[in-house]
Order: sequence, then C-alpha cells, then structure tokens
Amino acid sequence: MRQLQQKLAIARGESPAELLFKNARVVNVLSGEIHDTNVAVDDGRIIGFGDYKAKRVINLRGAYLAPSLIDGHFHVESSMLTAPEFARAVVPHGTGAVVIDPHEYANVLGLDGIRYVLESTRNLPVDFFIMLPSCVPATPLETAGARLTADDLKLMIADERIAGVAELMNFPGVYLGAKSELDKIEVGKRARKAIDGHAPGLRGKNLNAYALAGVRSDHESVEVEEAREKLRLGMHILLREGSTERNLAHLVPLVNAHNAANCSFATDDKLAGDLVGEGHIDHCVRKSIKLGMSPITALQIASINTARHYGLRNLGAIAPRYWADFVVFDSLKKFSVRQVYKRGRLVAEDGDYLARNPARVPLPRSTMNLRYAAGDLAVRAHGRKKIKVIEIVPEQIVTRTAIAPPKIVAGEILSDTGRDTLKMVVVERHRATGNVGVGFVRGFKLRHGAIGSTVAHDAHNVVVAGTNDADILCAIRELERMQGGQVAVVNGRVKAELALPVAGLVSDRPLPEVMKRIDALNAAARSMGCDLAAPFMTLSFLCLSPIPELKLTDQGLIDAVNLKRTGLFV
Amino acid sequence: MRQLQQKLAIARGESPAELLFKNARVVNVLSGEIHDTNVAVDDGRIIGFGDYKAKRVINLRGAYLAPSLIDGHFHVESSMLTAPEFARAVVPHGTGAVVIDPHEYANVLGLDGIRYVLESTRNLPVDFFIMLPSCVPATPLETAGARLTADDLKLMIADERIAGVAELMNFPGVYLGAKSELDKIEVGKRARKAIDGHAPGLRGKNLNAYALAGVRSDHESVEVEEAREKLRLGMHILLREGSTERNLAHLVPLVNAHNAANCSFATDDKLAGDLVGEGHIDHCVRKSIKLGMSPITALQIASINTARHYGLRNLGAIAPRYWADFVVFDSLKKFSVRQVYKRGRLVAEDGDYLARNPARVPLPRSTMNLRYAAGDLAVRAHGRKKIKVIEIVPEQIVTRTAIAPPKIVAGEILSDTGRDTLKMVVVERHRATGNVGVGFVRGFKLRHGAIGSTVAHDAHNVVVAGTNDADILCAIRELERMQGGQVAVVNGRVKAELALPVAGLVSDRPLPEVMKRIDALNAAARSMGCDLAAPFMTLSFLCLSPIPELKLTDQGLIDAVNLKRTGLFV
Repeated sequence: MRQLQQKLAIARGESPAELLFKNARVVNVLSGEIHDTNVAVDDGRIIGFGDYKAKRVINLRGAYLAPSLIDGHFHVESSMLTAPEFARAVVPHGTGAVVIDPHEYANVLGLDGIRYVLESTRNLPVDFFIMLPSCVPATPLETAGARLTADDLKLMIADERIAGVAELMNFPGVYLGAKSELDKIEVGKRARKAIDGHAPGLRGKNLNAYALAGVRSDHESVEVEEAREKLRLGMHILLREGSTERNLAHLVPLVNAHNAANCSFATDDKLAGDLVGEGHIDHCVRKSIKLGMSPITALQIASINTARHYGLRNLGAIAPRYWADFVVFDSLKKFSVRQVYKRGRLVAEDGDYLARNPARVPLPRSTMNLRYAAGDLAVRAHGRKKIKVIEIVPEQIVTRTAIAPPKIVAGEILSDTGRDTLKMVVVERHRATGNVGVGFVRGFKLRHGAIGSTVAHDAHNVVVAGTNDADILCAIRELERMQGGQVAVVNGRVKAELALPVAGLVSDRPLPEVMKRIDALNAAARSMGCDLAAPFMTLSFLCLSPIPELKLTDQGLIDAVNLKRTGLFV
Repeated sequence: MRQLQQKLAIARGESPAELLFKNARVVNVLSGEIHDTNVAVDDGRIIGFGDYKAKRVINLRGAYLAPSLIDGHFHVESSMLTAPEFARAVVPHGTGAVVIDPHEYANVLGLDGIRYVLESTRNLPVDFFIMLPSCVPATPLETAGARLTADDLKLMIADERIAGVAELMNFPGVYLGAKSELDKIEVGKRARKAIDGHAPGLRGKNLNAYALAGVRSDHESVEVEEAREKLRLGMHILLREGSTERNLAHLVPLVNAHNAANCSFATDDKLAGDLVGEGHIDHCVRKSIKLGMSPITALQIASINTARHYGLRNLGAIAPRYWADFVVFDSLKKFSVRQVYKRGRLVAEDGDYLARNPARVPLPRSTMNLRYAAGDLAVRAHGRKKIKVIEIVPEQIVTRTAIAPPKIVAGEILSDTGRDTLKMVVVERHRATGNVGVGFVRGFKLRHGAIGSTVAHDAHNVVVAGTNDADILCAIRELERMQGGQVAVVNGRVKAELALPVAGLVSDRPLPEVMKRIDALNAAARSMGCDLAAPFMTLSFLCLSPIPELKLTDQGLIDAVNLKRTGLFV
C-alpha cells in the first residue's frame, strides 16, 4: 500500500521518478499505434507518459521502445542450458518472458523436476512461466523417470508462476474422452488457467472434439488451412519457428489485424547456437515483417497477445502498472534489438548480456541409475532372417522401416558399416530396471566409433549408436561417469563430450562452453563419417515412440504406427 | 465427466446432435472472418462445425449467425425494470449477457441489494454478471441506505457471477492514493477480476496515477483524444451509447482492427422505452457500422472483447465449448436481429420475446423509512436576502447556480411560478433520520402541482419539486404509500404514478405497463407546464452531489464544486 501510494505521488508528478526514458517512439501494443512520448519508470514499473522529473534521464533520441518479447511455448531443455545461461543467450535478443513446458525435466524427475525449474528460474532478466507437463510418460512403451497424473498437477496448479496445463500430446486420448486426459484438462479449467494443445494434422470432427474438451491452443500447425480451422474453433495459434520446426512462412498469411489477438510466437525447441546466432522471438518478428505482416501486429503477437493468453500479469505492454521491460531498436523493418531493459535496468546492449546472474540453485539429484552388462548388447542371429532397421529421414523426427540382411559373426549380428547399419542400444537409466533395448539404425554413416546421449525423447534413457560393441559400451560408461551428457567415442577414447549433469538433459556450464562443446561433438561425428546436420538431435528422437514409423526404446523395437512392440526379425 | 464424454462422442460424429444450424454464414469473431458452415449444438453448447446428423435441423438458408451481444457496463436500475422484464426488453435485440453495476440497489440495500440482484438474475435468457459497487455511499454529503467497504466486497468477490469491482467513481480518491479506494482495487486484483474505472475528463499525470493504481477500464470518455489517452494507458474503453450519454459518434474514429480488442460497447443507463424502441447493443453495432466501423470489428466489440475483458466463460463466440447463444440476421449493413437463441433455444423472433420467465424471487425488504412533518418544508426568509437556486441545464446532469429574489408570504419563502423558482424537498428515506433538505430549483416550469421520485442519485432519498407545499406533501405521502416510485400530483390528486416497490428504484410490473406508466408520468408533467424531455430523470439527478454545480440532498444545499454544504442565502 505504502509503496503504491509513493508511486502514485510520482505519477502525479509530486516526486521525481527514478528514471525517464526521453524521446521514445513507443510501440503501443494496446492502442495499436506508435506515438512519441517520455516514459517514467520507478522501482521497476512504468509510472506514466509525459514530462516528468527524474533522477536519471535516458535520452532515446527518437529510437523505438517496444515491450520485451515473449515466447509462448518453449522447452527450455532443448537449449541444454540452465535457465541463467539460457537468459544469457536470449536476453540480448529482447526476450523478456517465456512460457515453458518442462516436459523433459518432468519425464526424468517428475514433480521434483518442475520444482527445480521453478527454483532455478527465479530472479533472472527473463520471467519464466511454467505449464504443467500433461504427458509424463509420453507412452507406456518406454520407461520414464516419473508418472504425473491429474492429482499431481493439482498440487502445483495454484502457484502464480504456473500458467496452466502444458500441451496435451495424447490428442486421441483427449478427443476420445479418456478420463485421465479430461481430468488433466479439468485441473486447468478449475484454476482458470491456460490449457495447451498439440494436435499435428488433426482436422474435422476429431478436432472439434479436441477443442470442445477444453484445449485452448495449438502450436503444431504446419500449413495455413489447418491453422485456420483451429483458429476458427477458438484455439490460440502459436506461430512456431524453432531450430527445426519452421512454420512461419506457411502461417503468416493466416494472420491479420482482425484475428492477431489470438496468435502468439513460439519456438518450441531451439538449440543454443541458433538462439545466439539467429535469435529468438526477435527472429520471428523480423521474419514475419519480411513476410508481409504489419510491424504493429507482429509486435502485438510477440508481446501482449501472449501475456494475455497465458495470464502473465503486468507483462507485454508499455503502460502504467506494467513492468518496465522493454527493447530499444532503430528500424521497424530491420528490427535489430539494440538495448534491453528489465524492470527498468539495462540488461543487454549491442548483443552483450549485462545482467548478473543470481547464485546457482542446487542441482537436482543424480538421475543415472543404470543396470546392464556387456552381454545385454548381444543380438543372436535367427538363421539368415532379415532384420528391421530404423531408417533416419534427414531433418525429420519421423523414421522409416528398412529391411536389411544381417551381418553375422559367430552367430551374432554386428554393426555393418558397409551397409550403414549400426547397432543402436537404449539402456533404461531412471530406476535400474535392467531394461536394454537393442536394434539397428541406418543414416548415421559412422565409419568407426559410437555416439551416445542421455537426451532421448521422451523418456530420456541412454541411447547409443555405434560401429562396435566396445565403443558402444565405452560411450555408455562415459555417459554414466558424466552423470548424463552427449559423447563421441572412437576406439575406446572420448573424442568429444558434453556433460549434462542436470537431469541428464542440461549442462551446468556457461553458454560459450556449451556452444563450443556442441560444435566439437558435431565435428567429431562428422570426422567419424556422419553427414547429418545435427546428429545428436537426430539420435535423441530415435526413441520417441509416439512418432512413426519405427523406434527403439528400453523396451525394445517399437512399431510407432500401431503403438506396440515389434520384433527385430522380419 | 460423463456429460462431456457424451458431447465428445457427438463431436466425433458417433451420435446425433440435438440441433444442427444448417447453412449458416458464421460471423467468426475469433478468426475475424465470415465463413459458411453448419453448427452442431447439444445440451446448450456448440459442439462443432461441419456435416453432423441431428435430431432437429434448422436451415438458416445463408443467414448470418453471430454470437449474442454483450453490454459491458449497465446499471439495470436505470430501466426501472426487474431483471426478467429487462430481458423481455433486450433479448429481442440480441442481447445475451450484461455486465451490470448494481450501484443503485447497493446504495439503498447494501449487500442485501447485491444478493437480491444475484438471485433475481438467474435462469434468464440473458446472463448477468455483476460488478461490486465501489462507491456506496457516493459522498458523505448525502445519507444513503448502506456503506460498503473493501471488507464487504471481499465477502462477495469470489462468486463466479461476480466479474469484478465496479467503476471507481471516486477517481480523485484513487489517484491521490486514499487507502479506502486502493483497498477496493486490491480486492479485484487479488481475485484476478476486472476493475472498472470512471474518470470523466481525467487526463495527464492524474490519469497516469489512476491507471497505475490498477483501474483497467473507462466508459466516461466523451471525446476521442481523451479515449485515446486512456487506451494508450492500458484502459479497456467502453464505447458508451445510452439514453442520454451518447458517445459513439465521437469515439468510433478511435477504433481500428489493431486496438479493437481493447474496446467494448456499453449503455451505462438506458430507459425501458429506449431499449424497446431504439434497441440495446444491436443499436451500438448498427450505429458503429454506419459510422464506418468494419462489421467484423463491431461484432467483436459487441461480443468476444467484452467476454474476455470481464472473464465471462464460454460466452462471446461461436466455437466448440461456447454456449449456443447467437443471433440470426440477414444483412451486415442493416444488422436487424431476426432470431435470438440462448443455449440453443429460440428465445426471440421478429421482435417477440419467446422465453418464459422463471418464478419471481421475493422482493427485498421495504426501504421507505421516512420521518418528517409538514413544518420541515417551511423556509423562513432572511429579510429580502436573495437565494441560491439550482438551475437545470437541459439534458445534462450538471446544474448551474442561479440567484433569485425570494417570493415571501407571511415571512416564508414560497415557490414562485412566475419566475419558475420551485421549492424542492429531499427527505431521507432509509433510516428515518428526520433529515429534510429544502431548496429551490429553476427549469421545470411547472405551473401547478408537484412531481416526486424515490429514484434520486446516488442515495435515492425522496425528492419532490412543486409549486406549493400541499402538493409536495401529497407527493411524499403517495411515494410512501407506494413503497417508492414516481408521481405527479395536482391539487392533492394523483395525475400519474409508477410504483417502484423494489428498493424504491424498480417496478415489479411487466414491461408494457411500466412503459405506459412512464409515458403517463411524462404526459402529466407536460400538462403541468414542464417542457423537459425527461423531467423525472432530470429530477433524479438534482441530488447527485459529486456532479457540479449546485445540488440538494437530505443534508441540505450542496456546493458540488467544492464538495461541501452551503447555505440558501447569498
């Protein structure tokens, strides 16, 4: 009360403000216009427009001032960075808030993962809002570290930084009326919070049912008619442009001033290097303007629309009572962010991160609980019976099923580099079940060695593909030693590695080191023969059992079309 | 759960819907476009778009189907109708929901008034959402029936039909930081509900402070630059077009597709006759389109924008999960509502109200507690000292101060019809304090008799203006007998009257009778010499102490500029 009364006195002009941003061209996403004014700020809040006395004056000399940018849907684990290092990557690009779905943390650590995310995302120059993961585990065909039911979500939904229920990926479960899924939606409804969808390709009557069930958004549309149908049904459309999923070019034609209030930008998954190099939501704004969107509309989509949809208080606009979170830039066309302010403090300038990150929070518990033996990797031949091989489709998360003759030595099937048919192993790592899935994969083109990762969607078990068992075992041991990570091994020696001790998903190292190590891993894979653009990302999606066509989990080969286990032999 | 699962089966097309609205041109306020489709409805809800089997098919043959209209700010007491009779007036015009501020009920009955409103507005073909009155009493310069503090508002804020805190009319109190007012705002903030403003003419730094305090809307702008300033500051703009306050023509130029999401329509106060004759929000839509607004924008402002701002669940759009509340019409330009559906039921057609109103709820307690004597009306002259006279400004709620020589008979000042200087009396009616205010008024031009009302903003005491004490006393007695109302008396005989037994504000009679009696009252006043357009409305505003310049309350003459009592004599 006292604080507010002091601020009101400042607003009335009776005492000086802390800061005055003078000669700003304010991008006013509320009145939908650009107007020249001065913006008074005190104690991190915008106080008012006009001529104010202030202890410090920042003369913007006619530069644009827009609200900081907001990502409407992001899996922060995809950057493999802790929240403070993620901030280091995106704040210089003007990001002020992100709505994250800690789906990977939750699959490994359950509610403890969400609690870690809540703790580790405080007091940063980016505000984090968290959607409660709704699909843990993603399917019963892999062994995750946790299981979250509607009752679990209820425990956390009231927290003011919880923005709702995250993407309901089990969309058939929703439209078919599975109680488990409707219960999760009900948790969000009761709390009057957002309920995110995920329904790639869903159209027509089943989509009607999905919307009717209460799902309020979608970020999976890849073409305009699908997005239009969802928009008509009352779903907030997240225009996605991530590292691999790039939908803006297709979706921008859908958006106009009459419907933009129901659109947000999102990146979904974006690698550290892409965040730093290409940008974050600023890239979405730039690209949308280039594609013909009006700059006001693009900046509304990048700010207030997302803040409103997810109920992010006092974020997304420049007006009294809002946080003094804004970006300064010089050209509407180029939209290159020059300065970034958070709560009125300069936190980035000319690409440099100026904030001081808070003390590190304790890492969550170790998540590497493996039980396996060298013998688990052996695959006995069935005569000369041919085998099913997972065939990588470059830059896609779907795979195909190839059929190959086995390379048999002493009754066992080995990797066959001549036919690019490598052994692939998935070792359960959460609860030491002893589950080891073994299969074969085509597309990595490794000539020697093995590559491995504990990032392996969605259960994030240990996954390794290699040319020989010794190197595969070496990779597994190295991943165990690092408490999770990614590794490239040749002849029993580590060529490159990135430790991911935070849940086996995220590095605890600074951004530059992480980027360097990722580059080194990719270079190592290249030197081993791999020509994929992102071999470790490709590897991490080979376990994703809900996505067609053939996958491998700790439970064995998965027919991901019919969602059931399948045998190796044809 | 079971019900939802059944609806999902209908949405999937596995069982027939109750209703199918075929060949509709849907005005889709979400995607901002008009598209042809069929709309399936079951159990009052929209199920989906497309080809559905249904038990009953309504062929719209290409007619437009738009969401029912919503009034963002209305004092239902201004219609002098109970909620069911108000519904009878507005439903044929396409109104599906109203956000009301029961400011008058609360001034008379306090929380009991709000409870009565909650009860009496259930199960009608209009959804009522209630803002909690924030200014009861309006000022300490009149004696109201109740006093509501922030603690009182807290008792009711959680109710799901309470949409927030009503207009903070004490705007200086807010921007100056009065704890009582900030506490009321805090009640709305905590509940994450709407917080309405009322700041006529407020601009600049004090407006910044008003917005900073947390006020989120305004409906008092009468010119475009004032509204633009408020819009820029993050205030939702209610474009008002009521019986007397007509702001659309001035404000429509402000609105465009980029900012329309922050606008709603409102009527504030509208008489029964005007609602029936001219229309309600449909009139706002028609007029806005005529003034150049795009029909899509006008219909968004009339529906989804208001539903979102006030958090009205499942209202304001045609899409799955929304209530099947819609209007059918044939021309976007004319926008003449032909049919109105509520929860899928036809409730009005071609101007006829087809709904059956629910059983009447018990009226609230009697509110007529008067203590007065004939002698209280006497005004002793002070020699020949001139007197201050309240001068009516036709069609305005402000008044001026006139100075007149008194007409003295036997040492007492009497009404002076020759100079149009009538005696005016205000008798406190809530708690029998015995307070009687006496003054003089110019502008009614009555040649004989008296007119009286228990609608008298904002404390709603008994107010009478007349040419002689006998008729004034007769009017007071008649108002007492009727338990509140409006009356015209000549020579001790009632010429016309309307009983308002519901809090002395509202009739318990059907709409046609109320309209007839209002016409008779106006005709009687005309026959008595009055040439004002709405003499009883004018009379009702002569007590409104926060509005300049000279007013009369039960506490005496009020200098409404300096907000203090003042003497009769110059």
